[in-house]
Amino acid sequence: MNETIKSRAAVAWGPGKPLSIEEIDVMPPQAGEVRIRVIASGVCHTDAFTLSGDDPEGIFPAILGHEGGGIVESVGEGVTSVAVGDHVIPLYTPECGECKFCKSGKTNLCGKIRDTQGKGLMPDGTTRFSKGGKPIYHYMGCSTFSEYTVLPEISLAKVNKTAPLEEVCLLGCGVTTGMGAVMNTAKVEEGATVAIFGLGGIGLSAVIGAAMARAGRIIAIDINESKFDLARQLGATDCINPKNYDKPIQEVIVELTDGGVDYSFECIGNVNVMRSALECCHKGWGESIIIGVAGAGQEISTRPFQLVTGRVWKGTAFGGVKGRSELPDYVERYLAGEFNLSDFITHTMGLDGINDAFELMHSGESIRSVIHFDQ
Amino acid sequence: MNETIKSRAAVAWGPGKPLSIEEIDVMPPQAGEVRIRVIASGVCHTDAFTLSGDDPEGIFPAILGHEGGGIVESVGEGVTSVAVGDHVIPLYTPECGECKFCKSGKTNLCGKIRDTQGKGLMPDGTTRFSKGGKPIYHYMGCSTFSEYTVLPEISLAKVNKTAPLEEVCLLGCGVTTGMGAVMNTAKVEEGATVAIFGLGGIGLSAVIGAAMARAGRIIAIDINESKFDLARQLGATDCINPKNYDKPIQEVIVELTDGGVDYSFECIGNVNVMRSALECCHKGWGESIIIGVAGAGQEISTRPFQLVTGRVWKGTAFGGVKGRSELPDYVERYLAGEFNLSDFITHTMGLDGINDAFELMHSGESIRSVIHFDQ
Repeated sequence: MNETIKSRAAVAWGPGKPLSIEEIDVMPPQAGEVRIRVIASGVCHTDAFTLSGDDPEGIFPAILGHEGGGIVESVGEGVTSVAVGDHVIPLYTPECGECKFCKSGKTNLCGKIRDTQGKGLMPDGTTRFSKGGKPIYHYMGCSTFSEYTVLPEISLAKVNKTAPLEEVCLLGCGVTTGMGAVMNTAKVEEGATVAIFGLGGIGLSAVIGAAMARAGRIIAIDINESKFDLARQLGATDCINPKNYDKPIQEVIVELTDGGVDYSFECIGNVNVMRSALECCHKGWGESIIIGVAGAGQEISTRPFQLVTGRVWKGTAFGGVKGRSELPDYVERYLAGEFNLSDFITHTMGLDGINDAFELMHSGESIRSVIHFDQ
Repeated sequence: MNETIKSRAAVAWGPGKPLSIEEIDVMPPQAGEVRIRVIASGVCHTDAFTLSGDDPEGIFPAILGHEGGGIVESVGEGVTSVAVGDHVIPLYTPECGECKFCKSGKTNLCGKIRDTQGKGLMPDGTTRFSKGGKPIYHYMGCSTFSEYTVLPEISLAKVNKTAPLEEVCLLGCGVTTGMGAVMNTAKVEEGATVAIFGLGGIGLSAVIGAAMARAGRIIAIDINESKFDLARQLGATDCINPKNYDKPIQEVIVELTDGGVDYSFECIGNVNVMRSALECCHKGWGESIIIGVAGAGQEISTRPFQLVTGRVWKGTAFGGVKGRSELPDYVERYLAGEFNLSDFITHTMGLDGINDAFELMHSGESIRSVIHFDQ
């Protein structure tokens, strides 16, 4: 098995261009690496952001995709934690267990391979993808838009084989990010009042997380009211469209909640909404968590009085979840029926339809499209 | 005793004017109120801020001063927690124990009398001070620049009588604010790396707090190097003048600490320094606490990436200390020799010299001037 193989892949040749379905070459896994067959992959806004060319760190040509589920096809020298046939979820936030971040116990932001991953390279500084001898770069350490991809061992969470990879692939990014922000980063307690700004996949996942945490009131905010039915179904108690008010939404929420919410979550990436999310928090203890990723160079602002009077401004990446040690438990909780994922999957298609997935995202029609490689 | 009495007081007749020493009338305490004889009062930057006219909430004429120590002279109807002769520290942040803030257990920002206190009034909406029949307003609920002042019972911490009021008066504001920010708000742990911006009374108190918390490294930052000797004496391990570097101080500190500090404290009130304080924190877990009070309308900014990658932005008022239930223990720790206060008191004077105290503050010569009413 340890030889270069052919793989179908959606290649991003350059910014702003549609993805191109190609047959590429995928090298065998090197020491400490694993080659997997991707069964399914969600299509996320972050893929679209990089493809658009707005991501200053975007590198081309590349194979995008970072929300996948797959099966180990072969392993490189020294790999011990996964074996051929294991079901795995690729991790754009690895967990080496050895760096000062992992050892701190305070964060999931492993630093071990950050530099090379940011450059679209494997830890040894090279790529495993090529077409006609020309290298193609990796993306977020995952590149799940290729049927076969190679990852460092530390970037794979081994999960229960009974879980359908076409669904739990969503735990590779959006759903875990939203649920984890609520349960891990904010640690929302029973009875708390929560505001969630933006009802895309991450925001809706935050709604689920808040419902699982038994928040007493879950206020969902979006300017697209077509999201409200699902938000309510998942547990939102109030759905609010800021466009229906002629004053700032933070003031609306402060009045609605007799002083503000205990926790708020920004799930859009809009710096003005981040301010609203902070300022709708209750004086003395309200915490606002930024989940959304803002455009390059954009800044958040507020009066420092907001913080001096007890509000806390935080952020989270991948929901603060340590991928290898904690993500498998999310899969178990899914299998136990604590939450479902099918609500999120509004569209599925084969790899050939991947550009349609981006269209559906841009038009706001989809929550998540999932690519099935066997279609 | 329950009659109007005469009192020497420094009256602020209007913004930007020197204080005027007057004999004023002080009414007896009403129900739930206490009249105290002030023995000593520190002079704080907040007094100067209001006196300057820059404080948009400043009200005149008023009796300023909020960092005092006194002895109960008489009590109003229903007062049970203090008695004549008790030694007390006035609290600009009261503790009623009944409002939702006090009951939350999450904050020291009692809401019980906020509205009237902010308007310079006692809880019943009137003042206890007058001159020639013309009312004079209260300030921060304390007005310690009068030999006799009246406060609500919930605004007094009863402290050990053996503590010298000329020193522990500093626990009524600056020292508690700095120490509390470190020990209460940040909960700095043994071995942590800490950066403290601004070495006035609050910053130096934060240095003491960090030393008491056994922080491993205490980096003190000021542009006035004359503060460095005392900072080192109190426990600072590194003293840095940002003017000696040609790059942003946050970059200097990140390099110096191999990635950033665990905790930082802004003790100035400068919004640009607040940004530096946040951005010198370590990715993944660094927390920055704003203590300083910025000018009206000023805003803090940063890239949200700073928070998404794990930094936390907080603030604190009065060090997060609940005045009635927690401040007496600070006095006990002082009496036990855990820290000293005399280092802070660079000047003392009688009430007649109070305008000199403001001069010494503006020139940077003093850390704290303390007014002794018996001088």
